[in-house]
Amino acid sequence: MVRQERAIRTRRAILEAAAAVFDEKGYEAAKLTDILDRVGMTKGALYFHFANKEALAAAVLEAQVRETPVPAPQAYKVQEYVDTGLIYTHLLATDPLLRASARLSLERVHGLNRSYPYIDWVERNTKLLSEAKGRGELLLHIDPAETARITVGAYGGMNAMVAALTPRLNLEREILALYRHLLSGIAVPAVLMELDVRPGRGERVLADAVRLSSADDGRGCRSGATVRGEPGTARSGGRQGRAG
Amino acid sequence: MVRQERAIRTRRAILEAAAAVFDEKGYEAAKLTDILDRVGMTKGALYFHFANKEALAAAVLEAQVRETPVPAPQAYKVQEYVDTGLIYTHLLATDPLLRASARLSLERVHGLNRSYPYIDWVERNTKLLSEAKGRGELLLHIDPAETARITVGAYGGMNAMVAALTPRLNLEREILALYRHLLSGIAVPAVLMELDVRPGRGERVLADAVRLSSADDGRGCRSGATVRGEPGTARSGGRQGRAG
Repeated sequence: MVRQERAIRTRRAILEAAAAVFDEKGYEAAKLTDILDRVGMTKGALYFHFANKEALAAAVLEAQVRETPVPAPQAYKVQEYVDTGLIYTHLLATDPLLRASARLSLERVHGLNRSYPYIDWVERNTKLLSEAKGRGELLLHIDPAETARITVGAYGGMNAMVAALTPRLNLEREILALYRHLLSGIAVPAVLMELDVRPGRGERVLADAVRLSSADDGRGCRSGATVRGEPGTARSGGRQGRAG
Repeated sequence: MVRQERAIRTRRAILEAAAAVFDEKGYEAAKLTDILDRVGMTKGALYFHFANKEALAAAVLEAQVRETPVPAPQAYKVQEYVDTGLIYTHLLATDPLLRASARLSLERVHGLNRSYPYIDWVERNTKLLSEAKGRGELLLHIDPAETARITVGAYGGMNAMVAALTPRLNLEREILALYRHLLSGIAVPAVLMELDVRPGRGERVLADAVRLSSADDGRGCRSGATVRGEPGTARSGGRQGRAG
């Protein structure tokens, strides 16, 4: 048990070092030796956990959605759909693992399967939008899966544009503008009036989500301790085999 | 005059070879020797036109908006706003220069200024949306520059997502869904009823735009001949100096 815990910690340390290097240099320019230097380990230790650079990138990509906590329940499911994006936006500003993952999901690399985060985000958004539709919060013609794809695709592009135009644009402000544009075409007017899409909401809903996931550690989302950067509580990814 | 024409052709051939290599390998993995091999030239000829790989990438990025023809005039300016995106979508499927440019605009590379295409697309969209607003086609609260940024950012992300999920998604279908989502929140109902956002429109409006720009070669957009891949009519870019 102790040995298993140590292995989980080691794997996490390697993953975080890899993320820092991918965030800084991108996939192509990142070298395994940069990652080893940063984590202070031997090649053998790394290869015990990850077969190669591609497996490291796959694990970083896979962490993107799993490590973003789900929002606390709200009066409207469509508010939870917005909060999902705001929580991620707020984490992106500070979390190197999510920053690296966002960068990798935009860079086309031969042989690297970048589909995980898109599939997982679309799934999480589709679920919330389907529940919202079931409760009558959305206009009748809305297809939850289609709106989820638009949201996920558009979000990634806003992030890329803000990075390209730094420091002229602020990510939270642009993401709020994106949600306002989408909401007015998908939610019924009475619900629109009740939604909060004001600046600063991201920070509050992230704090609520972290409290929620700390209290309930049986959930499949990132635990509060991990959000605050302590190792040891992270789950080891189980999807390496899906790469390629 | 003949010498100048030959220089323009040579520059164009180098640019197209560079685009093909960037499209295939991305910026980091692309080597100048790959580009020289493809175009069959010496280093000296390349360096006469482009200082280095970064200057080549800057020229490919810069071509993205300039080489996308503007749509033919429509009854509604907001239709021209949609047609702008549809023309680009249709070109992306076949034009290696635009494909490479789209890829480069999503990849973060140290020292490479990726702002051109974002700035130019936002400018082109802002102009059309401002005209649409002036004619009463848009809802009163719409800020044309903000909606233009959302459109441009979202478009790039949809393209990245479709690439990551290939062959599950079709770019034209997803882009039409994006425009339908945005339009319902920005255009007045009477105009919405008159808009065409059906599949296949991109091909028709591209053909119209090419005809228009061939007939009027004083415009700042790509000429019809260039769209069909003939060299010699392309303008040499004048913005290399903005890189860095």
